[in-house]
Amino acid sequence: MHQGNHRDHEGAKKLFELVKDVKVAMLTTADQDGTLNSRPMWNNEIDENGDVWFFTKLHSPKTAEIGRDNQVNLSYSDPSSQTYVSIAGKAEVIRDQKLIDEKWQESLKTWFPNGKNDPEVGLIRIHPEQGEYWDSPSSTMVHLYGYVKASLTGESPKTETKKVNLA
Amino acid sequence: MHQGNHRDHEGAKKLFELVKDVKVAMLTTADQDGTLNSRPMWNNEIDENGDVWFFTKLHSPKTAEIGRDNQVNLSYSDPSSQTYVSIAGKAEVIRDQKLIDEKWQESLKTWFPNGKNDPEVGLIRIHPEQGEYWDSPSSTMVHLYGYVKASLTGESPKTETKKVNLA
Repeated sequence: MHQGNHRDHEGAKKLFELVKDVKVAMLTTADQDGTLNSRPMWNNEIDENGDVWFFTKLHSPKTAEIGRDNQVNLSYSDPSSQTYVSIAGKAEVIRDQKLIDEKWQESLKTWFPNGKNDPEVGLIRIHPEQGEYWDSPSSTMVHLYGYVKASLTGESPKTETKKVNLA
Repeated sequence: MHQGNHRDHEGAKKLFELVKDVKVAMLTTADQDGTLNSRPMWNNEIDENGDVWFFTKLHSPKTAEIGRDNQVNLSYSDPSSQTYVSIAGKAEVIRDQKLIDEKWQESLKTWFPNGKNDPEVGLIRIHPEQGEYWDSPSSTMVHLYGYVKASLTGESPKTETKKVNLA
């Protein structure tokens, strides 16, 4: 049960649960001169193999950057729920009308007003290789909580960081 | 007035205003094999030159990664306010007790319970070279708003993306 499906792993399961709640990811890619660029990505879907899918315009700076260097990072950050996740992986740009038809949702018309048959509609598949998440105390006053705890006990707050191998 | 101070530029000013509200940034660095890792960074300070400062443990994976490759990305993502910012720049790890004393806030005891004189306390300075931000319609229902607008007019929603040169 430990091969093929990343979700078998308890850590990865937790990671994907957190990610599911955040929805918007910042996708970081490297451009030609090594500059790291990121941008918000909506319509985050994780398939049964643990691969993450996004819709994209086929011709865009991010697809060009992925074409040259497929190493990417997905960061999920939601200050309101104190959820922070980092996923490192390899990305691929795909133009496959069958997959687009399968994954298409009407809400995507926000970004693709001409619909799913627009030749500029493409997919990015990210195969996660490594992930980390930060679990804060459930209170939104994590900072205060942590500070008080630190002052009382001389210890750092009970923030849980876990590194998860997904490959 | 256009040299030295990044904030002279209208776009950069907007960028720093947004960033100021989000507070928590995900810092992405590249490790030896090109894997891109990110982690949440608190205590975000932007100085009068437009450089971004964070406190860090001097010996940590991120400082090792910055030591090998100083290209980094800061992404600021706040789904609740629909704020998304990307800053690309060059990072430097600094151990300077005078600067640490100047920038120290008592709340940092959350991460450094031994206080500002702990030899493991260091600073990361990031010199921004490029930035982008995404302005969504002010409603938190941006997705629905955009979809309705797209359906009615056949146009993408009025999301404003601006690329700002900060170097």
